[in-house]
Amino acid sequence: MKLGKVVGTVVASRKDEKLEGLRLYLVQDLSLDLKGRDAFVVAADSVGAGVGEVVLYASGSSARQTRDTDGRPVDAVIMAIVDQLEVGKALVFDKFKAG
Amino acid sequence: MKLGKVVGTVVASRKDEKLEGLRLYLVQDLSLDLKGRDAFVVAADSVGAGVGEVVLYASGSSARQTRDTDGRPVDAVIMAIVDQLEVGKALVFDKFKAG
Amino acid sequence: MKLGKVVGTVVASRKDEKLEGLRLYLVQDLSLDLKGRDAFVVAADSVGAGVGEVVLYASGSSARQTRDTDGRPVDAVIMAIVDQLEVGKALVFDKFKAG
Amino acid sequence: MKLGKVVGTVVASRKDEKLEGLRLYLVQDLSLDLKGRDAFVVAADSVGAGVGEVVLYASGSSARQTRDTDGRPVDAVIMAIVDQLEVGKALVFDKFKAG
Amino acid sequence: MKLGKVVGTVVASRKDEKLEGLRLYLVQDLSLDLKGRDAFVVAADSVGAGVGEVVLYASGSSARQTRDTDGRPVDAVIMAIVDQLEVGKALVFDKFKAG
Repeated sequence: MKLGKVVGTVVASRKDEKLEGLRLYLVQDLSLDLKGRDAFVVAADSVGAGVGEVVLYASGSSARQTRDTDGRPVDAVIMAIVDQLEVGKALVFDKFKAG
Repeated sequence: MKLGKVVGTVVASRKDEKLEGLRLYLVQDLSLDLKGRDAFVVAADSVGAGVGEVVLYASGSSARQTRDTDGRPVDAVIMAIVDQLEVGKALVFDKFKAG
Repeated sequence: MKLGKVVGTVVASRKDEKLEGLRLYLVQDLSLDLKGRDAFVVAADSVGAGVGEVVLYASGSSARQTRDTDGRPVDAVIMAIVDQLEVGKALVFDKFKAG
Repeated sequence: MKLGKVVGTVVASRKDEKLEGLRLYLVQDLSLDLKGRDAFVVAADSVGAGVGEVVLYASGSSARQTRDTDGRPVDAVIMAIVDQLEVGKALVFDKFKAG
Repeated sequence: MKLGKVVGTVVASRKDEKLEGLRLYLVQDLSLDLKGRDAFVVAADSVGAGVGEVVLYASGSSARQTRDTDGRPVDAVIMAIVDQLEVGKALVFDKFKAG
């Protein structure tokens, strides 16, 4: 999985029929020190994430293993909202302390 | 999924038999501020997209989950035409206002 | 799919039994203006391509969706020979006019 | 597979139901001379790895071929803990001699 | 497939049970002129390759299409040993002439 931050939303009225009802987010990749990287994906949401949250997303066929994305033409899915990240023994991210 | 812009078309008369009837587009990757990137793919179209449109495409086995691409040797499919993109609270793209 | 040019051939007598009979080509990635990129793959051929031709190749599990590659340990297949490429309204490649 | 080092942990209370019980690690890619690279993934653990260990991780659908990850939305799994690496005839890593 | 050179071996006693009996090699990517690239993978061996040999490896789910790797958490497999490479009309590699 990749570590990312939900930075925006996508609205698409004309889309494959199997995409109906899926929320699509712009997710920017993060570095290990939580800086935004140059890369991003558009990911479906299976966990009720919101803009600004730090999340994990899965890619490829693994993105179709959630109840929401099964059998759909979706190659990236947000499957977890990150509470805490520890690198070495340092807590580098805590959702409840981050502004 | 990746965010891209349809920039051209591919004509191929000699191709795998399973590709018959599929429209193939050149799709250039876009950055979050809608600038063209150096990367592009050739994607099949499942939504009736046209040159100049901003789209989403799915890659890998997920590209075979549409009715048009099922079971075909296709690793990228346009599965949505983008109407609007919002980054943070700013509307960075609106199909109906873009030229 | 990726746009590439067949630049060479691979001979391998010792190989997985499922590869018997497959022709393997060196395919260099091309940019949108048909320049050779630094990246290349070794792809199986399902369309009778030859050295020098501009082709499309599919990667990953999609590379196993042709009759020739089904069930084989092959992650890239040439599935179309390009006749024409149009970017915007300009014809940037025409097989029958290219040298 | 990629060679990596377990550098941290991820805590996520809100996640896809199929992720329950999986341990998620931050794994930094290593170069052939065991230096940390700029790239990292979040991988599930199928072998009882710990922070600081040099491991192998598998990506994509192959990450779902362990008993722990089967059918789950997981695209990277630690499937081996490295004891020794030999490059040419030189032993470049020995778990039992590394600090 | 990618062109690579077997540059070393990996020993891992603690690993997913499905990996038992597989030989794991360090394989460095090669450029078209047979120079070592900065990228490498750890690949299972299905053809009896040895250190120093120029090989092809397949990635992703295609890496599980050999008898040795079927159903295993393996995302890269050496599936051919290269005898000769021809680029244009020049023989750029010949196993039996390479030192």
